[in-house]
Amino acid sequence: MPEVIQRLESIFSKFPGIGRKSARRIAFYLLDRERDEVEELSKTLLDLKDKIVRCPVCNHITEETPCRICSNPRRDDSVLCVVEDSLDVIALEKSVSFHGKYHVLGGLISPLDGIGPDDLAITSLMRRLDHVKEIILAINPSVEGDTTTFYLMRLLKDKDIKITRLARGIPIGGDLEYTDEATLANALEGRIEVSHE
Amino acid sequence: MPEVIQRLESIFSKFPGIGRKSARRIAFYLLDRERDEVEELSKTLLDLKDKIVRCPVCNHITEETPCRICSNPRRDDSVLCVVEDSLDVIALEKSVSFHGKYHVLGGLISPLDGIGPDDLAITSLMRRLDHVKEIILAINPSVEGDTTTFYLMRLLKDKDIKITRLARGIPIGGDLEYTDEATLANALEGRIEVSHE
Repeated sequence: MPEVIQRLESIFSKFPGIGRKSARRIAFYLLDRERDEVEELSKTLLDLKDKIVRCPVCNHITEETPCRICSNPRRDDSVLCVVEDSLDVIALEKSVSFHGKYHVLGGLISPLDGIGPDDLAITSLMRRLDHVKEIILAINPSVEGDTTTFYLMRLLKDKDIKITRLARGIPIGGDLEYTDEATLANALEGRIEVSHE
Repeated sequence: MPEVIQRLESIFSKFPGIGRKSARRIAFYLLDRERDEVEELSKTLLDLKDKIVRCPVCNHITEETPCRICSNPRRDDSVLCVVEDSLDVIALEKSVSFHGKYHVLGGLISPLDGIGPDDLAITSLMRRLDHVKEIILAINPSVEGDTTTFYLMRLLKDKDIKITRLARGIPIGGDLEYTDEATLANALEGRIEVSHE
């Protein structure tokens, strides 16, 4: 196997969700593309590193600093939604139901992976709390997510700030029969009275 | 979503086996890498197109022309193994049980995809037949594979060349219980007498 293909395979196989075999298939796929297509990819990769930075305020990925959400005067400064990464911001923005601002931690506390609070954007979060009335901890429910949530709750408990988390329950389109027990337990616990109209 | 990420996503989602969501995850994975890692990938992609060519004799990928298999005087010129692509050559070479030479078609006949015999390295195959005594059609058993095999068999039938194909049967490590009917039928049909020693 030519050395350059092996090199590319070993890079691709580190991509999330890509195994050895897929990495090889992708290398051969690129081998069959026209040179200008591969050049375009090569250039776009450098563009990615050159054009995208982290917003110095909220740590979200952005092409401008501060990012468009932070610099938008119509967004509510008093509600801060704390998320793991920028993909969460994009998902929440798509729901068009949050009008506050965000803070992107850039990961979760995970002692097993050697990721502690100092590796996350927590210091910059603590510096933003002056006019904040509510912090929504919109962190995925997982071992690392819960560890991070508890850490932040303890850190914030003496401040005069309301701390909330996202509701847990049956997703829209979900089916009781196929819903796991933990979700069902959460959905029952958080049940809401239906009014007779 | 920044434009450069969208651009990268759309390139990655054309990769074999990569959907929209994986493409996005890969883009974000690269965003978190160091610049020199991304530079290395960017450069390796150009290297791939610059260093790898098709062997003018057998159409296999190579860094030298002709390729190392074609230029190896210890390989048997009289047996030609015809395969779909270079990955098949690599797989067969790994088995260390073939000592002839190869011919890489560069695809299979597939009218639905608009791929006809002229799109494959068939003319160059026909020019190589002078000292050839056997041609092994080592082409995957699929609709396109069988179409291509039949096409080549017809093309070669008037030449004084033995045409063979790979044996079909139970793979090593396979389990009768979980083997599909077509493979079982092939395995039965091709059964071999066991000698009493």
